[in-house]
Amino acid sequence: MKPAEGRKRAVIEAIQPQVDCGRYPARRILGDRVDISAAIFSDGHDHVAARLLYKPEGEREWRFAPMTALVNDMWSSSFIVDRAGAWVFTIQAWVDHFETWCYDLKKRLAAQPDPSSPDPAKRDLPPQDIPVAFEIGAQLLDQTASRTKGADAKQLKSAAASLRALAAENAALYDYPISLEIEQLAARYPDLSFAAQASDLRLWVDRERARFSSWYELFPRSTSPDSSRHGTFADVELLLPEIAAMGFDILYLPPIHPIGRAFRKGPNNTISTNPGLDEGSPWAIGSAEGGHKALHPKLGTFADFDHLVAAVRDHGMELAMDIAFQCSPDHPWVTEHPEWFIHRPDGSIQYAENPPKKYQDIYPLNFESSDWRGLWDELRSVFQFWIHRGVRVFRVDNPHTKAFAFWEWCIADLRTEAPDVIFLAEAFTRPHVMYSLAKGGYTQSYTYFTWRTGKDELQSYFEEITKPPVSDFFTPNVWPNTPDILHASLQTGGRAAFMQRIILATTLAASYGIYGPAFELLENVPIRQGSEEYLNSEKYQIRRWDRAAAHSIAPLITRLNQIRRANPALQSDLSLHFHTVDNPQIICYSKSTIPPPAPMTLAEAQALSSAHDAHRGAAPPSGPSTARPAPAGPPNVILTVVNLDPHNEQAGWVDLDLKQLGIGHDETFDVEDLLTGIHYQWHDRSNYVALRPHVMPAHILRVTRRSPDTSGLLDINTL
Amino acid sequence: MKPAEGRKRAVIEAIQPQVDCGRYPARRILGDRVDISAAIFSDGHDHVAARLLYKPEGEREWRFAPMTALVNDMWSSSFIVDRAGAWVFTIQAWVDHFETWCYDLKKRLAAQPDPSSPDPAKRDLPPQDIPVAFEIGAQLLDQTASRTKGADAKQLKSAAASLRALAAENAALYDYPISLEIEQLAARYPDLSFAAQASDLRLWVDRERARFSSWYELFPRSTSPDSSRHGTFADVELLLPEIAAMGFDILYLPPIHPIGRAFRKGPNNTISTNPGLDEGSPWAIGSAEGGHKALHPKLGTFADFDHLVAAVRDHGMELAMDIAFQCSPDHPWVTEHPEWFIHRPDGSIQYAENPPKKYQDIYPLNFESSDWRGLWDELRSVFQFWIHRGVRVFRVDNPHTKAFAFWEWCIADLRTEAPDVIFLAEAFTRPHVMYSLAKGGYTQSYTYFTWRTGKDELQSYFEEITKPPVSDFFTPNVWPNTPDILHASLQTGGRAAFMQRIILATTLAASYGIYGPAFELLENVPIRQGSEEYLNSEKYQIRRWDRAAAHSIAPLITRLNQIRRANPALQSDLSLHFHTVDNPQIICYSKSTIPPPAPMTLAEAQALSSAHDAHRGAAPPSGPSTARPAPAGPPNVILTVVNLDPHNEQAGWVDLDLKQLGIGHDETFDVEDLLTGIHYQWHDRSNYVALRPHVMPAHILRVTRRSPDTSGLLDINTL
Repeated sequence: MKPAEGRKRAVIEAIQPQVDCGRYPARRILGDRVDISAAIFSDGHDHVAARLLYKPEGEREWRFAPMTALVNDMWSSSFIVDRAGAWVFTIQAWVDHFETWCYDLKKRLAAQPDPSSPDPAKRDLPPQDIPVAFEIGAQLLDQTASRTKGADAKQLKSAAASLRALAAENAALYDYPISLEIEQLAARYPDLSFAAQASDLRLWVDRERARFSSWYELFPRSTSPDSSRHGTFADVELLLPEIAAMGFDILYLPPIHPIGRAFRKGPNNTISTNPGLDEGSPWAIGSAEGGHKALHPKLGTFADFDHLVAAVRDHGMELAMDIAFQCSPDHPWVTEHPEWFIHRPDGSIQYAENPPKKYQDIYPLNFESSDWRGLWDELRSVFQFWIHRGVRVFRVDNPHTKAFAFWEWCIADLRTEAPDVIFLAEAFTRPHVMYSLAKGGYTQSYTYFTWRTGKDELQSYFEEITKPPVSDFFTPNVWPNTPDILHASLQTGGRAAFMQRIILATTLAASYGIYGPAFELLENVPIRQGSEEYLNSEKYQIRRWDRAAAHSIAPLITRLNQIRRANPALQSDLSLHFHTVDNPQIICYSKSTIPPPAPMTLAEAQALSSAHDAHRGAAPPSGPSTARPAPAGPPNVILTVVNLDPHNEQAGWVDLDLKQLGIGHDETFDVEDLLTGIHYQWHDRSNYVALRPHVMPAHILRVTRRSPDTSGLLDINTL
Repeated sequence: MKPAEGRKRAVIEAIQPQVDCGRYPARRILGDRVDISAAIFSDGHDHVAARLLYKPEGEREWRFAPMTALVNDMWSSSFIVDRAGAWVFTIQAWVDHFETWCYDLKKRLAAQPDPSSPDPAKRDLPPQDIPVAFEIGAQLLDQTASRTKGADAKQLKSAAASLRALAAENAALYDYPISLEIEQLAARYPDLSFAAQASDLRLWVDRERARFSSWYELFPRSTSPDSSRHGTFADVELLLPEIAAMGFDILYLPPIHPIGRAFRKGPNNTISTNPGLDEGSPWAIGSAEGGHKALHPKLGTFADFDHLVAAVRDHGMELAMDIAFQCSPDHPWVTEHPEWFIHRPDGSIQYAENPPKKYQDIYPLNFESSDWRGLWDELRSVFQFWIHRGVRVFRVDNPHTKAFAFWEWCIADLRTEAPDVIFLAEAFTRPHVMYSLAKGGYTQSYTYFTWRTGKDELQSYFEEITKPPVSDFFTPNVWPNTPDILHASLQTGGRAAFMQRIILATTLAASYGIYGPAFELLENVPIRQGSEEYLNSEKYQIRRWDRAAAHSIAPLITRLNQIRRANPALQSDLSLHFHTVDNPQIICYSKSTIPPPAPMTLAEAQALSSAHDAHRGAAPPSGPSTARPAPAGPPNVILTVVNLDPHNEQAGWVDLDLKQLGIGHDETFDVEDLLTGIHYQWHDRSNYVALRPHVMPAHILRVTRRSPDTSGLLDINTL
């Protein structure tokens, strides 16, 4: 079947960014410059032009940005996303007859026979019909004028008239008659009759905290200063100055709802024999006191909760709630909406099981319920309830055990009212499943960092998650520990292992979190050998923590959060780059605010090589690429070197990729260890490091070009 | 907005093959096994099942193939394309409740308390409610039965009844009650109520010659045995035995239409001063005698043409016509359809120009014509005209100067009637443009091979064009020379260069062509230094060739075509693999019919590692992957080694990737040089080669496992 319009000659392909062929929006952060690229071309030798169309979703009028031709038919443009929320963009491309005419005219003029030339070859060139060419140009200018009015139209018409007047002169030799001003003016009124337009692509823009955040998880019931009673929201408030001083910006609380009594858990995941005394698991949600929209009475009232939310905000932080869509047998939904659960032939409701394990205190929801619409609405209303109470950050428990279609709908719907809400997916599962949740709307995701301890596995995993295509939809939030996971390396590595893991977390990822105070107090005893469960886990009982203990590594964590806040390089993951070290126990990586090198434009390439043989697919000429305009001030460059061995000193030679650091070949530069304040003088690519895990297992080095005064610098290579 | 059905829990992603998100069909060859893969998963722990749906386009009923789970949520299946033409396929996936129940039941049975066990831990296990589980299974079997009838339904219902009877027994300990037969029977009647289905994807299936073809181009006007006259179709017929004996299967003729008289070209691209004597360029199509549907009167009549087409077929070859959509000023379209051309303000028609060059004998067609519909129809009718005369192969001249949308429509439309037509795109232009023509329907494409002479550039280019994604839509047809291109390496490299280039062409690519007899007669004089144009080019004049000349390399070409026909490895490009050589002047590569290793299935991975920690995204366990069933007989393996230096002997050590050759570590194997018939005994990875360009610049080695009798084998390493 013939297309309705066969004269659209331009082709637009391979637009980036796009996620799964545009099925999901790509993600960016408020204030980002969004770089858009595509392959754009037409048949024949005519020139094409293209523009980027973009707007916040829902706005009627497109905004426009011209696209720049790069080599080999690639084009690029960009725009700044100045508003959080949904954006759309697309590309238009068309054959630009006026620009083609200008280009051809220049070649034609250069080929004019010159009767006064001493060179006979110049004199004998065939005639070039310049007056006819001028008339063609004048017609194109008239057509351009007809697409506008006022002064611009007048100017274009006048340029056409001048061309015709020149043509009438019938001169022996003509100069190029079009001013840059007229070229640019004409480009503003292109003939879009046969412009090709790509399908709209979506972009989701989050606020900055989606990219850069430091999470602190604690169980509020363990916060009472009085060891005889259950902690409260008010007790949590008392800890806020300390947590804020450590430099965290999100305080995350496990579920704060009433805890079911049926099959309530006792210490260490036993079935409670004393439901009156045992507190149960906060994830067994719902009792006679209410469900996901109620508060555990022992924690406080809604007034206490509202006060806490405000107090957290007053300390420069945000409160993150845990949303776990599952029910204890006492949850009101169980009687009010029995159709949301799976019923067994014996009339009982199916509880969670993984034989031989039984979780009788947990009823999963049935996403194949005939009343799935009612279920979806109610689950959404849980978020809405807390959003209306001022909560803007949700950590969602096991989202991968709920239908993907539900999340995509729910998150998109909630965001139409509250585009600033952040959702963290607690899904420790297979890669496709984790990525699919992120594509479907989750702002941040738990990662495999918790189990990645070797150099090669850390490096390959972070390369995967911090580069496109994954980084276009997935934002890692790395956790050295969680209430569910006490990794073997922490069980056996002692204090050094905790230091290594927190340094890796804070410098590899712009978003991270710890489950405290277990982390800073080096809690490392598993329930049994080979298990990742904590002994006397807070999931099942109240714990008392001596936050002031001398062995606490809170001072290190405080310092790390200070370093993160002071160094923008650490606030994004996209620049992460690994450097080579000749010791497999030492890992080295940098992050920086140096903008990536801009691709060479077609004009630059043509200037470099006028003989560029593009029609034979020759490789584009190599040459200096124009760096993007640098941001104000010098770039921020952080180079981190970590000894991964918790037991032994490790030393080796780092082989730096100097471009990543903005350092030139053979240059001497300053590195300041932000953990110790010591400056070293490094030189060129190869530099020596030695790290003792029990003293400090890492350098976090701020790299700066050498200042004129280098007195007082230490040369680490000569120490 | 909520979806219409929220209970579709399975997700299908990343289906391969697909070209540009399904915008274009992927390509395969008749008889191919098409491997389809996708990521498929669901929320939670329920098992998913999936099937492949496929059919020739236009058939009403889908055909089905079950999909197999691989590790990390990847699934695969395949089908054989037993018909040329358009196919469609897609994937359905759903949560398989019966299979989930079977899996859970096995775990549940394994966790039964065993009152007779000597192990107290076994005795004290909590009860597992087996009768309830059996009743759930019986209900699932009843539901499955309701989706079929007859014997299958009866068998399923009877299995349900047996389960209920077992449940009623209330035994102390149960065995697994479901036979493999019932498991497989139930799988045949899945509950598809909430099955997800991906969008249809397209596949285009060509006949075998699309993949494997050897083209011989000649100018019919130069074929007269009588030097005083213009060659004819009858003269061409006399050459057919010789061309067929050389092993070619496509005889390609430059345009055979009437040649315009206005601005007719004389020898060496001059403007003819003697249009009566000069023959002009066959690409200046159209005169008073007719246009694209007419024959040049000097070549013969339609009866002669039809006779030639049949004679070519009788010699086991096919005739390829050249379709060049451009017109001489005398072409009938110029007066009949002036709106198909660009008119200048002075009333003249725009001829082709690239100032200072003028091509007044060529009028390009205007694809922005207001009558583009009429133009498209007429151009299509040109193909239809020749298709109806029995032509099935077209080489299209400069397709990139005609609108892409036209080609996509025209080729698709022609193929609805003649799916066996092969289109070769003569587009020597930028990569995106060449690829876009291939995506839009061109069967084969000219390539940059003509200009790729160095080892690295050959290697990287062939790696690009013979692997996905490019190989899913682009099929290279490589030409060492064309009437337009006498590459510098042939101008200066002598006979050895011609031998090198023809050996590279015939062994690197399954489809290739030469412009003869210029090639085999080593024609190498350019019109001037630095030009790729031939002196006295046949494009502008009749040439006389002494095909029997002693210096002809026709015998080598004949041998190469014999080798290609005898060795299936050389008839496809997908297995091409480059091996390392320690000499930059020696290139080494293999092609084979060894099937690629099959990816490990989930079942295999689970058998290898029952502790497979998939929920933590652990890397899949490595282990032996099951090779696909090998084709009948031993695989065909060809290893080619070429000295790229036309002047000097080159020698070096080849470092073989033995897996690609089907050879084991430390194995001794036989390689037979198919150019000389000499056998060598090679051993393990590292083997020595030395090649003298003037004797024979290459080995084309057939690799075979060592036979028991190795007497008479030469060990090249000890020569």
